Amino acid sequence: MLRSFIEVGDGCHFPIQNLPYGVFSQPDTSHRIGVAIGEFVLDLTTLQQKGLIEGTYFQSSNLNTFISTGKSEWSRVRQRVQHLLNRENPTLRDNSELRTLVLVPRDRIKMHLPVEIGDYTDFYSSREHASNVGAIFRDPQNPLLPNWLHLPVAYHGRASSVVVSGTSIRRPLGQSKPDNAPLPIFGPSRFLDFELEVGYIVGKGNNLGDPIPVDSAAEHIFGMVLVNDWSARDIQSWEYVPLGPFLGKNFGTSISPWVVTMEALEEFRIPGPIQDPPPLPYLSSQLPWSYNLNLEVYLTTNTSQEKNLISKGNFSSMYWNLSQQVAHHTSNGCNLRVGDLLASGTISGKDPDSYGSMLELTWRGAKPLRLKSGEERSSLLDGDTVSMTGYSLGTGYTIGFGEVTGTIEPAKIR
Amino acid sequence: MLRSFIEVGDGCHFPIQNLPYGVFSQPDTSHRIGVAIGEFVLDLTTLQQKGLIEGTYFQSSNLNTFISTGKSEWSRVRQRVQHLLNRENPTLRDNSELRTLVLVPRDRIKMHLPVEIGDYTDFYSSREHASNVGAIFRDPQNPLLPNWLHLPVAYHGRASSVVVSGTSIRRPLGQSKPDNAPLPIFGPSRFLDFELEVGYIVGKGNNLGDPIPVDSAAEHIFGMVLVNDWSARDIQSWEYVPLGPFLGKNFGTSISPWVVTMEALEEFRIPGPIQDPPPLPYLSSQLPWSYNLNLEVYLTTNTSQEKNLISKGNFSSMYWNLSQQVAHHTSNGCNLRVGDLLASGTISGKDPDSYGSMLELTWRGAKPLRLKSGEERSSLLDGDTVSMTGYSLGTGYTIGFGEVTGTIEPAKIR
Repeated sequence: MLRSFIEVGDGCHFPIQNLPYGVFSQPDTSHRIGVAIGEFVLDLTTLQQKGLIEGTYFQSSNLNTFISTGKSEWSRVRQRVQHLLNRENPTLRDNSELRTLVLVPRDRIKMHLPVEIGDYTDFYSSREHASNVGAIFRDPQNPLLPNWLHLPVAYHGRASSVVVSGTSIRRPLGQSKPDNAPLPIFGPSRFLDFELEVGYIVGKGNNLGDPIPVDSAAEHIFGMVLVNDWSARDIQSWEYVPLGPFLGKNFGTSISPWVVTMEALEEFRIPGPIQDPPPLPYLSSQLPWSYNLNLEVYLTTNTSQEKNLISKGNFSSMYWNLSQQVAHHTSNGCNLRVGDLLASGTISGKDPDSYGSMLELTWRGAKPLRLKSGEERSSLLDGDTVSMTGYSLGTGYTIGFGEVTGTIEPAKIR
Repeated sequence: MLRSFIEVGDGCHFPIQNLPYGVFSQPDTSHRIGVAIGEFVLDLTTLQQKGLIEGTYFQSSNLNTFISTGKSEWSRVRQRVQHLLNRENPTLRDNSELRTLVLVPRDRIKMHLPVEIGDYTDFYSSREHASNVGAIFRDPQNPLLPNWLHLPVAYHGRASSVVVSGTSIRRPLGQSKPDNAPLPIFGPSRFLDFELEVGYIVGKGNNLGDPIPVDSAAEHIFGMVLVNDWSARDIQSWEYVPLGPFLGKNFGTSISPWVVTMEALEEFRIPGPIQDPPPLPYLSSQLPWSYNLNLEVYLTTNTSQEKNLISKGNFSSMYWNLSQQVAHHTSNGCNLRVGDLLASGTISGKDPDSYGSMLELTWRGAKPLRLKSGEERSSLLDGDTVSMTGYSLGTGYTIGFGEVTGTIEPAKIR
């Protein structure tokens, strides 16, 4: 098995088989591009300046230029970095000056958004999630809307308010209408929620007017991140007819800082759920485009440092897969651009402990979560921290995403 | 009255009182920034290189850098350009070499997108439009949804597919479900439509988490453009529940190339419709934020060169104004960025000949449009050209937007 000269502990998300890309800085340095390895980041910007990696695309404050070079260059760089980190290769291993320069402990760095996101699209591709929401808000006997089994429903989210993991989320003010109130009110959201999602970073665009066929769709994806699509349910439920979610969502969306490449995830591809009715031809693919990726959500309150595991699922439960999502998104000619973020939609499994939002876990507050501290939660309170993690188990190593985390700050009242 | 040494014909949209900004190129030149004056464009990029305008912000292929300099600089440049074009000022008027260099006939230039758009938001702020759509698709007795009179409903559109006037629009393929069909089908849209809108270009952003109060909202807008929000009604009506429009819209949105500044439009501000019920305090402003701006839509088919005036309205009919739209959009802390596009939503007036979409003008096909050629239209056919124009009448001059135009190309079938 391939091993790095850097020690990588059991269960560590960042062995030499992973090598996710991110953007980091240290106090007094500008943004640099690196890959995570064990407890370190390998500084690719500096390695490239030193001539140890060809090209200039890591001399940037985001990954867009590198990603634009295309799939064969991604592979070449991955092999080159694996070679440099290989425990059999003395180049870096035995050069202590260079090692000190380009291997920075991750606890000393600050992470930034890995890409400049042009557009952010959010899908709604978990059958269980759509069914739960339909049952809670509409009709438990007939929870799915008529279009749901025929196309991967989606909407455009807000790119400007996508933030990197660790950024605090301020409780939004907004207009809502309590069920028994005659008129709407304005104030801090009273039902703040998270949504567990996986996001794809577009690696290759298409021209406006040129759809991407379903079987080449996956070639257009560079890698994946975890996404927390924070939601203010009270604002959302009042505003969303007929044009969809807006202020209930666009106050903040958090993503994990490390982009795990499709190449690192390749070995975890598996077939997804049977689709019945069969999708229309433009959405039909015989290839397995689901991923065996374990997902967990933790809640920590400000009265106790104990982490509470509140959801545990798997990404492979998703009904619509990324290949179908890309094909559908571009079927009308809509153009994707390098760096765009596509998110899966909330990931809920069959078991109630695998639901991907507080709305579902508590069934709209009917069954509050009981935390280890004895506290209860039906929605997020100020000071609560939500952390999500994801990982796939290889043979002898773990390919992980690290985490996406965010803490709720009190609303700002003028 | 202020006059330029360039002759400006009666009714011309671009007198010295207007001076809208745009990005243009000629064969073999890179993109430059200019203002329209009469039948010419004044090349600000070259003027700035020559030292006749201070700074470097016109050395760019879009307006974002200039816009970022802020409102007082916008005013300063406007005064400087008016001074250079003033018929009393010999600097440019009597320097034939310089004049030839920086005044380019507009029929020899190609226009480009004026700004790099980060996010595109589309409102739904015409009461008449929302009522018409509600009556056509839901309940003629009760056409407005409960939230409509309380907040300016909006959704996020697609920034990547915003194109400049003159760009052809390819008929999208898509999934739809005919009323009497048991299952959805996939193919070229059978109900392609336009939507007449006005767009605002954000001139000053806000930090994530910091709402913009309603009375300072207008300071965050640099200028306006015309917008054609092309819509595929058959795709839209099947996909839009519950998350709103997506592929029915994001195949293309056209904007006019010249950004008319808020300063040029200032004298046309008037009070808007009375709002009853009164808006919540965060949306309440005593200032007049409607604009007396005439709007016209023309349809030309490929069987005849005759232009058919198919809609004639006024922007002042809009129920929710830009100040309220900006305040609402940021009320939850959502951050706007320089260059973002906010569109008003379809502009329909009280009279049926002022409706801003084919859906409404033909009442979903029940009353087809009769064109001068004898042809009828209930939706746009391949080869049809839609052109929109807008103008305000000053005393002795016209402040206009030029036009936003686009022709429908046949669907691309693989």
